[in-house]
Amino acid sequence: MFGVTRKKIERRAKRRNATATNARSNPNGTPFAETAASLTEIGRGFHVRGWVLGTSGNFSAVTSREPLRLAIASTGLDKGSLSPTQFLEVDNAVNIVRGDGRPSAEALLHLAIVRGVGAGAVLHTHSVWSTVLSGSHASQGGIAFEGYEMLKGLEGVRTHKHREWLPILENSQDMVELSDRVSKTLRASPSIHGFLLKEHGLYTWGAGLQEAKRHVEILEFLMEVLVRSRAAGERLIPALIEPGS
Amino acid sequence: MFGVTRKKIERRAKRRNATATNARSNPNGTPFAETAASLTEIGRGFHVRGWVLGTSGNFSAVTSREPLRLAIASTGLDKGSLSPTQFLEVDNAVNIVRGDGRPSAEALLHLAIVRGVGAGAVLHTHSVWSTVLSGSHASQGGIAFEGYEMLKGLEGVRTHKHREWLPILENSQDMVELSDRVSKTLRASPSIHGFLLKEHGLYTWGAGLQEAKRHVEILEFLMEVLVRSRAAGERLIPALIEPGS
Amino acid sequence: MFGVTRKKIERRAKRRNATATNARSNPNGTPFAETAASLTEIGRGFHVRGWVLGTSGNFSAVTSREPLRLAIASTGLDKGSLSPTQFLEVDNAVNIVRGDGRPSAEALLHLAIVRGVGAGAVLHTHSVWSTVLSGSHASQGGIAFEGYEMLKGLEGVRTHKHREWLPILENSQDMVELSDRVSKTLRASPSIHGFLLKEHGLYTWGAGLQEAKRHVEILEFLMEVLVRSRAAGERLIPALIEPGS
Amino acid sequence: MFGVTRKKIERRAKRRNATATNARSNPNGTPFAETAASLTEIGRGFHVRGWVLGTSGNFSAVTSREPLRLAIASTGLDKGSLSPTQFLEVDNAVNIVRGDGRPSAEALLHLAIVRGVGAGAVLHTHSVWSTVLSGSHASQGGIAFEGYEMLKGLEGVRTHKHREWLPILENSQDMVELSDRVSKTLRASPSIHGFLLKEHGLYTWGAGLQEAKRHVEILEFLMEVLVRSRAAGERLIPALIEPGS
Repeated sequence: MFGVTRKKIERRAKRRNATATNARSNPNGTPFAETAASLTEIGRGFHVRGWVLGTSGNFSAVTSREPLRLAIASTGLDKGSLSPTQFLEVDNAVNIVRGDGRPSAEALLHLAIVRGVGAGAVLHTHSVWSTVLSGSHASQGGIAFEGYEMLKGLEGVRTHKHREWLPILENSQDMVELSDRVSKTLRASPSIHGFLLKEHGLYTWGAGLQEAKRHVEILEFLMEVLVRSRAAGERLIPALIEPGS
Repeated sequence: MFGVTRKKIERRAKRRNATATNARSNPNGTPFAETAASLTEIGRGFHVRGWVLGTSGNFSAVTSREPLRLAIASTGLDKGSLSPTQFLEVDNAVNIVRGDGRPSAEALLHLAIVRGVGAGAVLHTHSVWSTVLSGSHASQGGIAFEGYEMLKGLEGVRTHKHREWLPILENSQDMVELSDRVSKTLRASPSIHGFLLKEHGLYTWGAGLQEAKRHVEILEFLMEVLVRSRAAGERLIPALIEPGS
Repeated sequence: MFGVTRKKIERRAKRRNATATNARSNPNGTPFAETAASLTEIGRGFHVRGWVLGTSGNFSAVTSREPLRLAIASTGLDKGSLSPTQFLEVDNAVNIVRGDGRPSAEALLHLAIVRGVGAGAVLHTHSVWSTVLSGSHASQGGIAFEGYEMLKGLEGVRTHKHREWLPILENSQDMVELSDRVSKTLRASPSIHGFLLKEHGLYTWGAGLQEAKRHVEILEFLMEVLVRSRAAGERLIPALIEPGS
Repeated sequence: MFGVTRKKIERRAKRRNATATNARSNPNGTPFAETAASLTEIGRGFHVRGWVLGTSGNFSAVTSREPLRLAIASTGLDKGSLSPTQFLEVDNAVNIVRGDGRPSAEALLHLAIVRGVGAGAVLHTHSVWSTVLSGSHASQGGIAFEGYEMLKGLEGVRTHKHREWLPILENSQDMVELSDRVSKTLRASPSIHGFLLKEHGLYTWGAGLQEAKRHVEILEFLMEVLVRSRAAGERLIPALIEPGS
């Protein structure tokens, strides 16, 4: 379903006027106002799908690389009714450089991902699917997806035969300690497209917001497929057989 | 996902102009017209999610503490197409002091919660998830949730290691008797954030409507996680193991 | 959740201006244009919920009792994008007295229900839940629901201890033969609120459209509860135990 | 639910002004602008239902038969926020004759279907249901549906007793090879209404867009019924018993 020449298309598309939700990656970051508007719209859409209920989840995007600046929602807000004025701009020590509010302690994880993989956008969702799977598969350390065409929507993946490993990290309230484990995970597995925090949710990212949003939809889809496959009694689906053997 | 300094943020937010749906707790209650508009919007959103089908569910909020006044929808209405004119204001004996209609007999439960825990808003939903779980777990007297990050969205909870007990009360058509049992439950377990009526639904509350709405989303989410985990064959998830042992 | 004095409220409400979707029962029928607008809106809402996909389902309401006139959608249309001009008015022999199109052969079933129980509105949905359950329970001849508070939303039901029997009729393409079986079922069980056609869907009704819509939401809810309860492994829920014993 | 005289109605309807989404089949194809608008609207609706997440899925319609011209979305786009300007018009060798972008490699499959069965529109969705079932039933080569009233919505089907075979083809990244297998499948089973690619999704079609959209809704519905039936423990439903015996 995904054309082999997507990169070429994306380059061409960049030269056109990009709408807020379709904003492509910009190596120097996207202006704050445009980013806040895009994140607001993404929040509304994810809330409708039940992926960020109860003020859970958070979204960020790089607005400047040099110096590093991140747009991120203030903590404790309903993601279904955000307004662009509720976004902050922070530096790489989570100091507020623009806006009124307080960043979530999880901003440290967003920064660890931005620094670790050079992401331009980081999206954290908290769905039923990720909560169920990150609990049931925690003892295996992660979940392997293989054989699904949907995998081709992950940046750089060319075939459904690809095996995607989605690590599960133990949850913690110590964000300094946890961001350190996130950095280590990214160094150890630089080709992953996301990870789960146990019974907490999904972190994924992209060069820009559009790519990160695509990754959310793909990983949430694959987790839903796995939970429903098991509920239907398909316990021997490829993803549960030891891959690489 | 929830910042440790949420209370500070909320205090600051209170000083700003609160929109209808984001109205924070007001110790003296929120004006009737604003409350009715907020409850109308909440009803529409919950109906879309299937949490108040068939005229089920009800919503109330304190409009005055001294004397006690409660805004509550008239009985028997479709919660997906309420209008603010369909709300009543009642006193602590369920006498109508404003509006045209008749309060649900369940207004007695709302008042018992307002008096029992000092709530500023009470939301009653009637989802598939709460109906399934309140039936299957009735013999255990309640459901324990533990280990989920989402728990941190419940007011006062600081860690996912928190254990939340959601009592299940036997259903009844005698609202005087039932409100008495609700009051006793709240005295016996003052730290709970909600309870279920067997095969009937969820009652939860908050200092204000925003907090109560957050609690609905969180408790409905956790119940959905439990039902789907069991359907997927995860019968030994933490919540089903004897907690406290 | 449903007030004991709903009837009184409904009488009072009738004296107010009723909006299209809230139109109450009118013993002499509701004007055609208003009915077509209400049915159009109901169709859109049901399509969003997946209850009338693929042009399935149909809706009708009595526009006149003497002589009998029924508003009903023309056959074969997408119920999610109806327009009021796609409704027909037919007499008691399914002759078109207003509008351009052709009534579904199932109009005979709608007329059998209008005549059999004096309904003012008949709604036929075709959900996944009703398809699954009408297949799995066909050999038992129907499904019993008992103990659910939601039952109180069915007209005339006063307590969750009520036992509601939802008969399942064998499906057929011979509408004359099938409408005859429907009439017999209604004579044999005059207190039912709906019935299923095997692997086909639900028929329910009400004194007016609002009541019929409420019955759809309630019966679809209860069927979803049953399917999900079984998926979660709750195979001994009350509805599956021999009732009346 | 489907009238026996639908064909007659459709003929009459064609003479009326058709709205974009209700556009009926035109033997000579529908103008490009109207087609692009219809496909944009279909994409938005399917994305809401979760059938084309993560830029998956694609849609096409014949705009001219002689010479053959196909409107199809450019590759790699979010199907929930398409604009008509993102559609291309291609000839029978997938050369672009109108628009800016690049067609998906899967355009070859669309053309194989247009040529193989004379379809006027081809819709490819990628739902959780089709992914689960095409994986679990791949070894049987397909899925049989029988006994469901919903089957009557498939063009030419007159009774719920019809048996519909939905073949499952092995997935591939070689679109030339895969389009060849699709052509062979259509020659071998000319009466099918769609097929699955393993762990990839559904292809279905129709004389026009409205018919193709109806077929998507019907086949997605039937797959959801099957997955949920199995989850509820109904493992002996007709579709799983050896058909034809």
